[in-house]
Amino acid sequence: MKLATLKDGSRDGQLIIVARDLKTAVIASNIAPTMQDLLDSWDFMQPQCEDLYVQLNQGRAPYSFEFDPKNCMAPLPRAYQFVDGSAWLDYVDLMCRARDNQMPELFHREPLLHQAASDDFIGALDPIVVTSDDWGIDFESEIAVITGDIGMGATPEQAREQIRLIMLANDVSLRELIPNDMIKRFGFMQSKPTTSFSPVAVTPDELGEAWSGSKVHLPLRSSVNGKLIAHPDAGKDMTFNFAQLIASLTKTRNIRAGAIVGAGTVFNKETGKGCSSLYGIRALEQISGAEVTTPYLKFGDSIKIEMLDKHGKSIFGAIDQKVAQAD
Amino acid sequence: MKLATLKDGSRDGQLIIVARDLKTAVIASNIAPTMQDLLDSWDFMQPQCEDLYVQLNQGRAPYSFEFDPKNCMAPLPRAYQFVDGSAWLDYVDLMCRARDNQMPELFHREPLLHQAASDDFIGALDPIVVTSDDWGIDFESEIAVITGDIGMGATPEQAREQIRLIMLANDVSLRELIPNDMIKRFGFMQSKPTTSFSPVAVTPDELGEAWSGSKVHLPLRSSVNGKLIAHPDAGKDMTFNFAQLIASLTKTRNIRAGAIVGAGTVFNKETGKGCSSLYGIRALEQISGAEVTTPYLKFGDSIKIEMLDKHGKSIFGAIDQKVAQAD
Repeated sequence: MKLATLKDGSRDGQLIIVARDLKTAVIASNIAPTMQDLLDSWDFMQPQCEDLYVQLNQGRAPYSFEFDPKNCMAPLPRAYQFVDGSAWLDYVDLMCRARDNQMPELFHREPLLHQAASDDFIGALDPIVVTSDDWGIDFESEIAVITGDIGMGATPEQAREQIRLIMLANDVSLRELIPNDMIKRFGFMQSKPTTSFSPVAVTPDELGEAWSGSKVHLPLRSSVNGKLIAHPDAGKDMTFNFAQLIASLTKTRNIRAGAIVGAGTVFNKETGKGCSSLYGIRALEQISGAEVTTPYLKFGDSIKIEMLDKHGKSIFGAIDQKVAQAD
Repeated sequence: MKLATLKDGSRDGQLIIVARDLKTAVIASNIAPTMQDLLDSWDFMQPQCEDLYVQLNQGRAPYSFEFDPKNCMAPLPRAYQFVDGSAWLDYVDLMCRARDNQMPELFHREPLLHQAASDDFIGALDPIVVTSDDWGIDFESEIAVITGDIGMGATPEQAREQIRLIMLANDVSLRELIPNDMIKRFGFMQSKPTTSFSPVAVTPDELGEAWSGSKVHLPLRSSVNGKLIAHPDAGKDMTFNFAQLIASLTKTRNIRAGAIVGAGTVFNKETGKGCSSLYGIRALEQISGAEVTTPYLKFGDSIKIEMLDKHGKSIFGAIDQKVAQAD
C-alpha cells in the first residue's frame, strides 16, 4: 500500500491512498482522517485502507483523482518522535578519517542514533528555507521507517514486525553550525533544520524482494542541480539494519505509534557510487589527496532524491527541493 | 488557568480545567477534547477555557468533580517536540569540575539544549520503570514550558509571548549509561528514559509576580524517600531564561504549537540549597573532598518534586514517583 498526506491548510493534512504507479489517489478520510490516526489504530484501519488500495489500482475506486506530489505534505507532517541513525559505519569512518580522528570501537557494538526535531516536517517539493548560505547547506539522502507501538526491551524481531511504513528522507544539515553543536555533546540542534520526506510512504510488502533483512536492497539516487552524484545500494554495507536500530532505541523506553526512525546517510564502500551527502563527497576528495572542490548548496540550487524499482519506476515519488533564502 | 489531562484509556487523554486550589476540576471536552487540540487553536479556545476556569473557581461550574492527580497523565501525554536545556551554568560547571574538565567558553554564549524523546510521557504519580537499578537511576527536577507556534529567527521577546503553559518535570537519567551516549556526541539516547511532568500545567499569569523575566522566582523542592534534599530558587542563577532558550532553538527552524522546552536541573550557587539531582549532590560531595555517599535511586525508592507559592500552596501539584522494576 502507498500512502500520502494532502495539503489542506490544516496541521496534519488529509490522508490519501496513492496508486502503485503514483498516477491516481483517493481520500481515505472515511477510514482515517490523518496518517497519525491510521498509525494509532493500524490493526483496525489498515485492512480497510488496503481494500481501497486494491480498488484504486484496479481503477474502480470512486472519487479518485490525479496524484500530484506538489500537493503533498510529508507523509507524517508532524511526529511524536524522529530518531535518526548513522547505520552505514563506513560513512562514519569516512567522516572520522576526514577529521583525522579514529572511529571509537563502541560504534561497532552500539548503533549511533540521535533524537531529532519532529514538529515541523516539510513536503517533498517544498523549498529548504535557510537564513544564510554561508552555513554549509547540505543534504543527506536517507531511508526512514515509521513504526507502531514497541515495548521497552524489544528484540530486533519484535521491532521488525512493527515497521509499518518506509519512505525517503532528506536530513538537511548546516555543516558550518555542526562544530558548535559537537562541542556541546548534546546532539544536533541548530545544525539540523527541518527534514523533508518523499511524497509517498509505502508498506514493506510494496518493496517485494527488495525488502529483506530489514534493509532496502535498491540504489538511492541523489542529484544536485540535475546531475546524478550518488547511487549507492541501500542494502549494501548497512552495519545495523532497521530492526536493530529500533531495538537499540527500546533499551530503556517504549516507542509509540508514529515514531520515525531514519538510518542515516547511505554509502557504499565500493568506489564509483558517490556519496549521499556533499560532506561525504568532500571527505572522499580530501582523503584521495585531491583538491576539495565540491561546494555546499547555495540559494537556488536543487537536490533530488529518488529510488527506482528494478523496472525503473519511482517507488516513493521524488524529493525534489530548491534551497531558498528565509525572509 | 490550570489545566491537566485525565487518563481515559486513549493515547491523548481528556483535557480538564483544574481549580486554582487543585481541589476540583471540570472536563473541557466541549471546548477542546485534548491538550494538543487546545494548543493547536489556542487563540480561539483559550478564552472559552478561561471562562470555565472562572466559573470553576467560583464553585459554579456544572459537572465539576474532585481533582485527583492519580488519574492524570502528563498534561501533554505525547508532544511533537521536547527540547531540554541546561540553563543553570553553575550546575554545568559543577558537572565539568567533578569530571576534571574545563567548561567550554562557548557555553556562556549559546545555551545548551538537547532534543529529547516526546512520544511516551508518563503521569506525575506513575512509576519510573527501569530494567536495572545498576544503571544509576537519577531524577532531575526541572521547570518546563509549552509553547505556541514560533517562526524561525524569533527574538527572545517574540518567544516569550508564545509561552503558553508552565509545568514541572522529572527528567529521569540513567547515569551509568551516559558515558556511552557522550562518546557518540549525538546527545542522550539510552541514558534518558521517559520523562514525567507535574499533574497540572498553568498559564504564566497564575504565577503572578513569581513569573518575571521569563523565569520562575520560587524554590523548587525535591525530596527522596520523604527527605527534602534540594530547594533552590528557580529564579536565581538561571543563566539563560526561557525566552532566550526558545529563541536559540529557532535560529534555523520553526517551532510548532505544543513544543515543550525544559530548562534543566535547577541549582543555586549559594550553599545549603542542595541540588536538584543526585548526580549534582554527589558532585558537591566529591568536590568538597568528602566521601561520595549519596546513592542513586533503587527499586522502591521515591522521588517527590513540588513548587509551593508564597502561601505554601502547591501550584502544579506534586510529581511523586516510585522506582519500579520492568517486567
